[in-house]
Amino acid sequence: MSILVVGSVAYDTVETPFGRAERVLGGSASFFSVAASFFTPVNLVGVVGDDFGEAQLAAFRGRPIDVLGLERMAGKTFHWQGKYSYDLNSRDTICTDLNVFEFFQPKIPARYRGSEVVFLGNIDPVLQRGVLEQVESPRIVACDTMNFWIHGKAEELRRTLAKTQVLLVNDAEARDLSGEWNLVKAARAIRAMGPRTIVIKKGEHGVLMFDGEEAFAAPAFPLETVFDPTGAGDTFAGGFLGYLAGSPSADGPALRRAIVMGSTLASFCVEAFSLDRLLTLSRPEIDERYRRFHDLTVFEPV
Amino acid sequence: MSILVVGSVAYDTVETPFGRAERVLGGSASFFSVAASFFTPVNLVGVVGDDFGEAQLAAFRGRPIDVLGLERMAGKTFHWQGKYSYDLNSRDTICTDLNVFEFFQPKIPARYRGSEVVFLGNIDPVLQRGVLEQVESPRIVACDTMNFWIHGKAEELRRTLAKTQVLLVNDAEARDLSGEWNLVKAARAIRAMGPRTIVIKKGEHGVLMFDGEEAFAAPAFPLETVFDPTGAGDTFAGGFLGYLAGSPSADGPALRRAIVMGSTLASFCVEAFSLDRLLTLSRPEIDERYRRFHDLTVFEPV
Repeated sequence: MSILVVGSVAYDTVETPFGRAERVLGGSASFFSVAASFFTPVNLVGVVGDDFGEAQLAAFRGRPIDVLGLERMAGKTFHWQGKYSYDLNSRDTICTDLNVFEFFQPKIPARYRGSEVVFLGNIDPVLQRGVLEQVESPRIVACDTMNFWIHGKAEELRRTLAKTQVLLVNDAEARDLSGEWNLVKAARAIRAMGPRTIVIKKGEHGVLMFDGEEAFAAPAFPLETVFDPTGAGDTFAGGFLGYLAGSPSADGPALRRAIVMGSTLASFCVEAFSLDRLLTLSRPEIDERYRRFHDLTVFEPV
Repeated sequence: MSILVVGSVAYDTVETPFGRAERVLGGSASFFSVAASFFTPVNLVGVVGDDFGEAQLAAFRGRPIDVLGLERMAGKTFHWQGKYSYDLNSRDTICTDLNVFEFFQPKIPARYRGSEVVFLGNIDPVLQRGVLEQVESPRIVACDTMNFWIHGKAEELRRTLAKTQVLLVNDAEARDLSGEWNLVKAARAIRAMGPRTIVIKKGEHGVLMFDGEEAFAAPAFPLETVFDPTGAGDTFAGGFLGYLAGSPSADGPALRRAIVMGSTLASFCVEAFSLDRLLTLSRPEIDERYRRFHDLTVFEPV
């Protein structure tokens, strides 16, 4: 069962208290694709400039990631630069050079159109809907968004959400989108906009999922060293949806396993800059940490 | 198996976005005792002024709470006044009138001295140690503290911690006490000071427990209405230690059940002002919410 991801492929320059990485591979679709590829074939749609070389593409090679949909445009690749505070809990964006990404018009190759799971990365909700018009009848449509669209394109975002089964956002975005501070109320308000499943990412505090009237809470894996949080949310989304796409069902128990799998992948992502840790990761390591997630949370009835 | 709690009994004046409560029953030992009394007999040591009447004592009557150790002193009862922000995530203390609490010298009645579990509420670490000198050989000594003592009486606090098996603190206190931002590292540093078990309370984000090298994470119960967070941490401690005191063992699985039981009690506490919800609570309601905690967190292996 293949998954289609539409999002950014970028260069990141990242400064953390532990070091600096200059123009390394980043972008939501990059993190997502590599994470999802552990579970299912991935069809990647994005855009890069003519400065994006074989060295960067190498991250996707040797994995079930189809890059036919990664368009190359004259110009420079999207570049984001950020700096994290000493506790890694906040970051300042130093620059966002959209470059070719400003002109991104997702074109879905014919052989991607039967993808059964679609992930609409954080792009203009008009473009997100354009993607849905180019695919046949996906089993699951999931989307991400951000405050820029919540405030700037509220109506368009509502139209996209009406066609979406799963929304992945962070807690601040859930509050902004719903106008509710309380996350239980926020999730209910968002469900009324279309998505049945609301996944609220809380960073170091884990994930809350509301699936219909059912709630599921998973902690973040307590790591001794968080090196660089960049891409953790997209890696979570890739592990979550990749696992679901590779799973025979998307019922409640499968959604829960997928949340923990996403959290597992994200816990590796933050151990190094860029996709460095994801690229050395093996399935046994993933399964071992998933088991440790279980050990971390399990308790008996009274 | 009885539990001894030493802490404050107070009047609270609380303002939240939902209303105001004037001079209602509060104090760490009050919340703790009522929560713990669902599981085990409680021996309460504290001090009140001559303005503390039968109406307030009524909260402890009809429960296995022994108030022989609740000293009455000439003067006024400790009074705390606070105001919460619109999101309930921060609060300003408007006034703290220690009154008779300033002169509190815990005296442990003879019939309390065999208590098997001891909870040292958040008081001067010198007084905490004085309590330990008056008890025989408790099975578990747990303590709470705050930044005021971490910074103001660092050496005395270290001496108390050396005699403690369980430390309950919030995340900011764990960081302050250890000098480590990362909570895994913080817990390890605190374990080196004495306590084997570190319980880190993260409010709406749940609880992290480190017991030796083992970690356990529990979410907070996702409530649609959080009315007043005052006393949630002490109620958690009461449910946690009360459950442990009433349990035949304090091994890893029992500690985990106790954490969830503490979280369960705390989730009721915040539904109303003061101890109002705890005082109407029944054991079947507690067990039902404990089961819902299990439903909230359970997931299958892959």
